Amino acid sequence: MQIQVNLKDNPYKVFVDEPYFLELNTKVALLSNPKILGLHLNSLLKRIKCEELFIISVKDGEEYKNLASIEEILNQMFNSKLDRKSLLISFGGGVISDMGGFAASIYQRGIDFINIPTTLLACVDAAVGGKTGVNNHFGKNLIGSFYQPKAVYCQSEFLRTLNERELKAGLAEFIKMAIMFDENLLDFIENIDETTFLNANCKDEIFTQIISKSVALKARVVENDEKEAGLRMLLNYGHTFAHIIENQTKYKIYLHGEAVAIGMNMANSLALNLGLIDEKECKRVENILKKFKLPTTYKIKNLNEFYEAFFLDKKTHHQKINFILPHKLGQGIIKNDISKDMILKSLGQFQ
Amino acid sequence: MQIQVNLKDNPYKVFVDEPYFLELNTKVALLSNPKILGLHLNSLLKRIKCEELFIISVKDGEEYKNLASIEEILNQMFNSKLDRKSLLISFGGGVISDMGGFAASIYQRGIDFINIPTTLLACVDAAVGGKTGVNNHFGKNLIGSFYQPKAVYCQSEFLRTLNERELKAGLAEFIKMAIMFDENLLDFIENIDETTFLNANCKDEIFTQIISKSVALKARVVENDEKEAGLRMLLNYGHTFAHIIENQTKYKIYLHGEAVAIGMNMANSLALNLGLIDEKECKRVENILKKFKLPTTYKIKNLNEFYEAFFLDKKTHHQKINFILPHKLGQGIIKNDISKDMILKSLGQFQ
Repeated sequence: MQIQVNLKDNPYKVFVDEPYFLELNTKVALLSNPKILGLHLNSLLKRIKCEELFIISVKDGEEYKNLASIEEILNQMFNSKLDRKSLLISFGGGVISDMGGFAASIYQRGIDFINIPTTLLACVDAAVGGKTGVNNHFGKNLIGSFYQPKAVYCQSEFLRTLNERELKAGLAEFIKMAIMFDENLLDFIENIDETTFLNANCKDEIFTQIISKSVALKARVVENDEKEAGLRMLLNYGHTFAHIIENQTKYKIYLHGEAVAIGMNMANSLALNLGLIDEKECKRVENILKKFKLPTTYKIKNLNEFYEAFFLDKKTHHQKINFILPHKLGQGIIKNDISKDMILKSLGQFQ
Repeated sequence: MQIQVNLKDNPYKVFVDEPYFLELNTKVALLSNPKILGLHLNSLLKRIKCEELFIISVKDGEEYKNLASIEEILNQMFNSKLDRKSLLISFGGGVISDMGGFAASIYQRGIDFINIPTTLLACVDAAVGGKTGVNNHFGKNLIGSFYQPKAVYCQSEFLRTLNERELKAGLAEFIKMAIMFDENLLDFIENIDETTFLNANCKDEIFTQIISKSVALKARVVENDEKEAGLRMLLNYGHTFAHIIENQTKYKIYLHGEAVAIGMNMANSLALNLGLIDEKECKRVENILKKFKLPTTYKIKNLNEFYEAFFLDKKTHHQKINFILPHKLGQGIIKNDISKDMILKSLGQFQ
């Protein structure tokens, strides 16, 4: 399947389980990590022909997604004498596509890059849409750029080697999109048989379906609002909370999707207190998260510290925190007028 | 005078010696260095009203234009809790506008910035056109982005405190544009009276003329080719050589404009050997440079090392070095088929 992302200046295609062969008349830097390279490099190399290929392998993990790693990646690119016509390929999960896109965007003021995601999370979300960046000690994804890939190639075969935890974490981002945009998707997710989803022999087909539905939806959102001035903010549902949890736990306890699952539950608790959703809807989401054994709670140690961290969220403007909340299931809303008392009350339920 | 830079997605104005007052409904980070702040902060503050103003002062000098400084600038921006609607003002020379634009382009994936240049070089060149970036040990301006300011305010009054060397270095970039695009400008430059140019009492008017002519020309070039795919490359005349000289001397010996003056003379030597210009034209440029006491020569210690450094130039593609050369005065040409022998022969004249 091919899904077009119709951006005026940077249109590109996302290929989902389509055969491809990249014949490139350029030098290529392949950014990945040791684990992915060990599992999938041979398979990928059969699909690439280029002038010269340089492999840049970085440490695996969100805790290494920082400016120091970007500098190291850039140094390796300069050592390989990549020029402005060279291509960077990000081959890995969300950490790799975030860093690869960012490095490509600032190498010699910008070279082309493509994403070949190898996790479900990167396929359904991170690899599409052109958000790139790194973390710093103030928080997650605070440094970066909007820089679109030239193409994205999603292949279910690379997902076969993921463990259960990684698969379920990927699903969290898909659940997020369903709650924000499309209740039918939520029905679809409820009907996914957990055993099928986790069974290596028959999961390719369900992956193809999940990725296609997710990318098609995300493409429409990004086309509508590339730089996140409005609609695209809804894709941050759960993330305002998740980023703080990830930063507080130094990216070591939760996978990103797991933190998003907790964040969605926190957002729902706030939405429930505000009367935007009812108990039944709140419970429905919680049940879906629990069905896929995603975490739904986190012990907030210091309420005020957690609250203050909202002010470094990228959606905070003029000291007003933009909360992304469900307004019925399948429809999102941005609220920036919630009182501090109400926020603290809702957070208090997680102490 | 107002000069419009008509870029499709980012149109903006350059104000040359126009009265202005910035009434900003946002937080502002003012990036500058201790020297500029000491000389001109009070004068600038009379022209700005905003929610909150945070001053970020970085060390003065091209040798500090690196990723470490960018990280420090970003940290100060996060400490001040700037949000996506905040504004960065670059207040200084080319180093400040290059770094400020780059920091703005990657802070929370991009915030607005404006340039208020305080050197002649930044007014005529660096502050206009959206090239941002920093150096690394591989070379100059190798990391960065194309990111346009929202406006540029050039004021002659800030140039009154420049010393002779800084003024002449600024003129070098103007001479560059004349040679590449407009012989009439070269006549204009030849007719500039050096004493007037350097006399504090009467130089405002000549500055206004130089800046207006230069910005008007640069605006047309940038509109035509924002991302430097062709025509804009001509603005790099002299720079292919200059960047290597600056990197080799660790940015401590020459001001950027001085290195460009040497670079133009080196390019002319190559152009002369190729028969693109004649001895008379070559001499004419050299005389202009000497009239303004700009350096024209540099002792290359290791020819091969100098030659190899060309391959990290941003205009090098597929191992072909793009040389920007004059083809008659007032007209530039891009040559990528010059033999190594010919290049070494021309460089050899600078041993």
